[in-house]
Amino acid sequence: MEDSQKQVCAWINDNRHRSIKLLKKMVEQRSVQGNEASAQAVVLEKCRQLSLDIDLWEPGGKALKQHPHFVATRTSFKDSPNIVGVMKGSGGGKSVILNGHVDVVPEGDLKQWEVDPYQAVVKDNRLYGRGSTDMKGGNVCLLMAMEAIKASGISLKGDVIFQSVIEEESGGAGTLAAILRGYKADAAIVPEPTKMKIFQKQQGSMWFRLKVKGRSAHGGTRYEGVSAIEKTTLVVEHLLQLEQKRNKRITDPLYQTIPIPVPINIGKIEGGTWPSSVADLVTLEGRCGIAPNEKIEDVQAEFQGWIDELSSKDEWFKEHPAELEWFGARWLPNEIEGTHPLTEALSKAYVDILESEPVIEASPWGTDAGLLSQAGGIPSIVFGPGETEMAHFPNEFIDIDQMISCTKVIAAFLLNWCEVSE
Amino acid sequence: MEDSQKQVCAWINDNRHRSIKLLKKMVEQRSVQGNEASAQAVVLEKCRQLSLDIDLWEPGGKALKQHPHFVATRTSFKDSPNIVGVMKGSGGGKSVILNGHVDVVPEGDLKQWEVDPYQAVVKDNRLYGRGSTDMKGGNVCLLMAMEAIKASGISLKGDVIFQSVIEEESGGAGTLAAILRGYKADAAIVPEPTKMKIFQKQQGSMWFRLKVKGRSAHGGTRYEGVSAIEKTTLVVEHLLQLEQKRNKRITDPLYQTIPIPVPINIGKIEGGTWPSSVADLVTLEGRCGIAPNEKIEDVQAEFQGWIDELSSKDEWFKEHPAELEWFGARWLPNEIEGTHPLTEALSKAYVDILESEPVIEASPWGTDAGLLSQAGGIPSIVFGPGETEMAHFPNEFIDIDQMISCTKVIAAFLLNWCEVSE
Repeated sequence: MEDSQKQVCAWINDNRHRSIKLLKKMVEQRSVQGNEASAQAVVLEKCRQLSLDIDLWEPGGKALKQHPHFVATRTSFKDSPNIVGVMKGSGGGKSVILNGHVDVVPEGDLKQWEVDPYQAVVKDNRLYGRGSTDMKGGNVCLLMAMEAIKASGISLKGDVIFQSVIEEESGGAGTLAAILRGYKADAAIVPEPTKMKIFQKQQGSMWFRLKVKGRSAHGGTRYEGVSAIEKTTLVVEHLLQLEQKRNKRITDPLYQTIPIPVPINIGKIEGGTWPSSVADLVTLEGRCGIAPNEKIEDVQAEFQGWIDELSSKDEWFKEHPAELEWFGARWLPNEIEGTHPLTEALSKAYVDILESEPVIEASPWGTDAGLLSQAGGIPSIVFGPGETEMAHFPNEFIDIDQMISCTKVIAAFLLNWCEVSE
Repeated sequence: MEDSQKQVCAWINDNRHRSIKLLKKMVEQRSVQGNEASAQAVVLEKCRQLSLDIDLWEPGGKALKQHPHFVATRTSFKDSPNIVGVMKGSGGGKSVILNGHVDVVPEGDLKQWEVDPYQAVVKDNRLYGRGSTDMKGGNVCLLMAMEAIKASGISLKGDVIFQSVIEEESGGAGTLAAILRGYKADAAIVPEPTKMKIFQKQQGSMWFRLKVKGRSAHGGTRYEGVSAIEKTTLVVEHLLQLEQKRNKRITDPLYQTIPIPVPINIGKIEGGTWPSSVADLVTLEGRCGIAPNEKIEDVQAEFQGWIDELSSKDEWFKEHPAELEWFGARWLPNEIEGTHPLTEALSKAYVDILESEPVIEASPWGTDAGLLSQAGGIPSIVFGPGETEMAHFPNEFIDIDQMISCTKVIAAFLLNWCEVSE
C-alpha cells in the first residue's frame, strides 16, 4: 500500500462511527419518490462540511422532458432537488463522477419487517432499514472517501464530482437532469449494491404492455365467443420462447453463471369483467431485459416482430393481433471494456486494499450508469457495498464492514485516478 | 281444437293490442336490480284487474338467508317486492305455478343500442327494449293467458298461481322466497326465452374463484421467483381438460347439438402488482356448468379433486396448492322426464294450437326452474317466447307473433292441466 492509501484507510477505520452515523441519518429519512428533500438536506449538510462547490436544483424544463431517454411517472419534480457537490482538483488529473441516488422504493407491507424500516437499527455489524443497501450505504462510501482524503490533508489533481440524484427507481430523470446540466467527467462510478463485485456490464430494461383480444359471449354458451384468457396462455408461452431465443445469443462469459441474462418478465395480468362472460380483453404488463450491447430500438423491433408471428401459430391473431405498447419506466444498459483504464484502475484499488482479485460480473438489472454512458458519453462502472438480494425487500440491511471496505477502495481509486497533488 | 281452446284463442287474437300494451308498460319500467317496484306496480294493477288473490311482500328473514340455496349480491330486498296472484280453482283439478322474473340486466353501453332500451319501440312485428325477451314477454303470456280464460267465461278446477319474482338474474332469491312462503303446485312453467322450444332440462351453474400462487422476485432475476402467471397457464389448461372430461360423460341426446353442454368458463383473471416483479398471486373467477342430473356437492367435489391433481403435473402445487372457493351467484340445474304428465300436457297443448310437434331441448343456462324443482320439489319446465341470443344483449327484442302464439299454448295448457269446471 502506498503512504497516501495507508493514511486514508487509517482515517476511515478511525472514523467508522461517523460513517455509521451518516448512514443512520440518511436511512431515517423516508425518501420515497416525492419525499426526497429531507434526505437531500442530510447530504447537503455533509457537502457543506466538505466545502464542496454545491449545486442544488429541481430537475425540470423542456430539454429534460423532451429528451428521448426521459421517462418519469410524474410531471413535476418540485421539492425533489438534485445535489451536485464538486471537490475541485488542482488541475491535470482525470476527473470522475461519483453518482448515487437518494430515492428509495416504498417499505411495502410493514408486517413483514422485523424492525422499523426508518429507525436505522444497528445489530451484529448490520444496519437495517429501507434504502440501507439500495443505495444510501453506497452514497456514504462516496462521501466518506472524499472526507478521508480531505481530512488526511491530501488534495487531488482531477475533479471529483459527487452527485446525489433523485428518481433512479422510476427511470433516471435525476441523473439525466445532471447530464443535461453539463456535468461531464472521464469516468463515473455508481455504488449500487454489487456486494463489491465490479459490474462491468449491466442489463437494461423497459416496460411493455400487451393487449390480447377475444370475443365476448355468455359463459353458458362460451363456444360462441373467443376467450382472451385462453389466447393469453398462447401469448405467455410465445414470450417465453422469445426470452429463450434472445438469451441463447448471449455468449458473454460474464453472464455464464446467470440462468437468464436478459429475462422477459410478465409482472401483471388483468382481463375479463364477469365470471359468467367470456373475456374479450386481457392486458399483460411486463419488463423486457436489454443486453448491454443492444439498442433499445432493435429490441423493440424484435419484440414487435415476434408478436406479429403469433398469427402463424393461431389464425385468431391474424384478424385480432395483440397490441404492443412500450410505457412507463426504462433503464438503459451499460458496458465498459475489461481493458478500459477505469476498469483497470478500480481493480487495482481493490487489489491494493483487499489483497485479492475482484470478481468481475454482469448485472441482471439496470442502473443510472446506463444513462451516464449512453446519454452522457461517460465510461461508467457499477461497484458498491450491499447485496442485490436485499434491495426492495423487507428487512433490508447493509453489512457495515463491507461498507467500510468499499469506502477504502473508492478512496484508493480516487487517489490513483485523479492523482495526488504534490 | 276443443271449443274452450277456440274461445280463448279467439279472445287472444282479438286482444293482441292489449298484450302489446301490457308489454310496453312493463318494458318502460327499468327494473334492474333494486329498481323493480314500478314494474311490479304494473303487474299488480293487472292482477287486480284479473281479481286474483294478491300477496305482495319484500323477501327477507332468517329462513331465506340461511337457506342452503340462498345466494344474493345484496343484503336487503327493501322496495323490491315479490308478487303472487292466485286464480283460485273450484277444486279437483291439478294446480300450476306460472313463474316469471321481473328483474332485468342493465342495458350496458347505450351506444350499442339503436333504440332507447326503455321506450318499448314497436317495429315490424317486434317490440324492442331491455327485458322484452328476458323475460317480460313471457310474463305477458302468463297474464294474458289467464285473462283470456277469465274473459271467455271459463273457470278452472285447479289453482293457477302466478308469480312475478325479483332477483332471478342474481341467483334466484325471489323464487326461493316464494317457495319458502309456502307456494306449492303440481307443476311449474317458467316462460324464459326458449323460442318456444320445450326445455326439459337446464344446465345449472355456479361461480368459482381460484387463487394460484407464485413466489415474488425482481423481474431482472425472475429465475429466483416463481411466476404465478406461468403457473396459471397450467391451471387454465388443466380446467379445459376437466371441462372435456365432464362433457364426455354427457350422452343425453337433448345435448347432441350443443358443442359444450356444461362449459367451464374462466371469465376473469387478475394478478401481479408491478411489471418489474414476479407475480406471486393470480386470481381466476369463472362459472362452472352443472348438468341437469348432477348435484352441486358432487360437482364441487369433482372440481376440488381435479385441482388437487395439479400437483401431479407440477411439483410446485404440492407445497403451494391453488385455492378453490365457491362464491357469488349459483343457479340450480333442472330436469323433468319426457314422459312426465307435465311434459306431455304442454306438448299436447303445443300440437293442438300450432299443429306441429314441439322441439324438445336442453338449455345451456339455468333458470329459477332449478329452484322450483330442487328446493320446491315442483316438477318444472321452461318454455317461452323470444330468442336466448337476444337476452342480455343490446337491441333486445321479442317477436310479437311468437308471444301471441305462446299465450295461446299456455292458455290451452291451463285448460287441460287444471281442467275446465263445468
